[in-house]
Amino acid sequence: MTGDGRLERYADLVVRVGANVQPGQDVVVRAAVEHAPIAREVVRAAFRAGARHVHAWYADAHLRRAALELGPPEELGWSPPHEVAWLESWAESRPAVISLTGNPEPDLFAGLAGELVARSEQRELRRAWIPLVSERRLNWAIASAPNAGWAREVLGEPDVERLWDAVAAATRLDEPDPVAAWRQHLARLEARAAALDRRRFDAVRFTGPGTDLVVGLAPGSFWRCATFVTETGIEHVPNLPTEEVFTCPDWRRADGSVRSTYPVALPTVGALVRGLELTFASGRVVDVRADEGRELVLRQLETDEQARCLGEIALVDGASAVRRTGLVFRDTLFDENAACHLALGNGLPMAVADVDGLRREELLARGVNVSAMHVDFMVGGPDVDVDGLDRDGHATPIIRDDAWQLG
Amino acid sequence: MTGDGRLERYADLVVRVGANVQPGQDVVVRAAVEHAPIAREVVRAAFRAGARHVHAWYADAHLRRAALELGPPEELGWSPPHEVAWLESWAESRPAVISLTGNPEPDLFAGLAGELVARSEQRELRRAWIPLVSERRLNWAIASAPNAGWAREVLGEPDVERLWDAVAAATRLDEPDPVAAWRQHLARLEARAAALDRRRFDAVRFTGPGTDLVVGLAPGSFWRCATFVTETGIEHVPNLPTEEVFTCPDWRRADGSVRSTYPVALPTVGALVRGLELTFASGRVVDVRADEGRELVLRQLETDEQARCLGEIALVDGASAVRRTGLVFRDTLFDENAACHLALGNGLPMAVADVDGLRREELLARGVNVSAMHVDFMVGGPDVDVDGLDRDGHATPIIRDDAWQLG
Repeated sequence: MTGDGRLERYADLVVRVGANVQPGQDVVVRAAVEHAPIAREVVRAAFRAGARHVHAWYADAHLRRAALELGPPEELGWSPPHEVAWLESWAESRPAVISLTGNPEPDLFAGLAGELVARSEQRELRRAWIPLVSERRLNWAIASAPNAGWAREVLGEPDVERLWDAVAAATRLDEPDPVAAWRQHLARLEARAAALDRRRFDAVRFTGPGTDLVVGLAPGSFWRCATFVTETGIEHVPNLPTEEVFTCPDWRRADGSVRSTYPVALPTVGALVRGLELTFASGRVVDVRADEGRELVLRQLETDEQARCLGEIALVDGASAVRRTGLVFRDTLFDENAACHLALGNGLPMAVADVDGLRREELLARGVNVSAMHVDFMVGGPDVDVDGLDRDGHATPIIRDDAWQLG
Repeated sequence: MTGDGRLERYADLVVRVGANVQPGQDVVVRAAVEHAPIAREVVRAAFRAGARHVHAWYADAHLRRAALELGPPEELGWSPPHEVAWLESWAESRPAVISLTGNPEPDLFAGLAGELVARSEQRELRRAWIPLVSERRLNWAIASAPNAGWAREVLGEPDVERLWDAVAAATRLDEPDPVAAWRQHLARLEARAAALDRRRFDAVRFTGPGTDLVVGLAPGSFWRCATFVTETGIEHVPNLPTEEVFTCPDWRRADGSVRSTYPVALPTVGALVRGLELTFASGRVVDVRADEGRELVLRQLETDEQARCLGEIALVDGASAVRRTGLVFRDTLFDENAACHLALGNGLPMAVADVDGLRREELLARGVNVSAMHVDFMVGGPDVDVDGLDRDGHATPIIRDDAWQLG
């Protein structure tokens, strides 16, 4: 990051457009120790936006590596109880939460058994986080923190400056007025969501090499995009970048096969799955194939009994600012905004009418999946067509030749 | 740190001789983000010693700087309540606690008003920590994490390798068998403490340039050194390095003036006080002079009403491994082991007979100071003589010409 103020503008974008930190609000910045230079700028931006207390909560993946190599196996995956309790308290204290991604050590778990790595994930922390999001308690955002390790993974060399250029392009930070550019972009995504809602599709079909999959939409689902609103009315943009329109599938309705078009980054496992192919029947994954990392996927699917059903469907075309960088970022935050994607695991009640406050069994009965897991995988790209299906099976093109069709 | 395994040996020394981590015990490593490379080695050493859970708790002084510059002034010094509660829970969970020092950014608070900097200290965290130590709940240790910023402060250039050499010399890591060298060293310190105890001195007198001070010892006090024992019986060596024998003064008995012989590092303030001179009357500081940082000292003295009385007296001669490095480390952990020192603030009940479990007022009545503050300052050196005084005023040389006299 050169001294042109770009880092400060980026931090302001994350704080003001992303989390939309409110005056007097507390803020938690979740970052890896390697993200410290950027976390500090986000902290400063949060104070500039009027935050009361700002806390940087640093993680260090090397601890997990140490626990895997040297710790007692029966304790793998332990979450510090005081951190779990702290997250649970956020339902009341409602801090703004900003998480930084961009894996500084993509090879840290190389050479370790995938099954062990998956077991070392801090599930209790994830379990505590998910209801905060699904119940819309918090204004939160995820943004990336370019660093040498991630640059090496994306570019083949630790050229952090070039990675910053790509991140700036993907997040519209290179526009003369990034906040105005974001307003326009959000309006364009909202128009797409509105067009999808007008058609009242019953299902979406993906067809392409290795892919022919029909995914049913949850009854009462509607299409959403970048902007979320907390239950107290704070608008925020959880993902920077974001290029998708998305909704909640009916976890009971997915049939066919799908080939992932990008490597799949398993969150918190810090490993990539390559060449993933899934077969669904009546909503459930019934077959898993992968060139690399299959056992990690199997382990994720064992999280709970709903983990092998879908929770998200999202549409992105070739005009995406992320796609136009021409890079594979090896980071879900970016790559899921380069192409259409699905997610296994926890569903999106915020994209379904009249389910607020429903409990697990009630949500499941409404077709909204409930799981402690949520893993995105990309299914779109230049060779994949997307159609909306009416209840009678009539198909309407949504994406053809990588371009959005639906007006 | 070159790849000769020195870092791993150092981490083992900190874990096994310092905190003496027990099999099955939980461990907390408190470190700055800049200490991460060394914190990770300590984590690995803790697991090798049989730790169950190891948690790295990272601090970032830049947050404090941001709060000082940009945050609401009325919130300065806020301690995250979940962290305070976590510390309080240690009285029961009893983790081993290893803290790393070595300020990576000695100039971070330069240019900010000292009074503000002092106010930004997280006092609730300190308040929660002190009883854990004084009630001997935990096996804990402080050791340093050499880094570029600290090296620049000590050596005038960011020569981390040379700083490592000095740290290795001060901690006997350069001995063929560091653990055996530590056993010998601990025995030598214990012999000094025993010799002092045999004399049953009533007071200690320091005389030198700008210094003529008599400090009374607390009734029932005895001399201690490197090794502490928790109330559950775990021996540990809280400071690496350690060269001192120390005891608890009677907070009501200090008279005369003293000139500090080193810059004084105020813990958690991240600033140095230079040329400190204090005058005591009946135990209380009645005059403060300093070339630099006087207002920081005044602020510390306002912590509570006992902050201006003494809590520790410690003796170190010129044979100290720290002194022999010839360096001023600008870090209390080292510099207090280069020379005799006193501490203002909280006393040392672990160096007084039969005060276990006494409450504040009872401790004070026994001469043991109780305060939320504990600040060391060096008063010894080549020009400062130390005598033990009997009740009738008879003086016995303890240190002359920088050399230990008492057999």
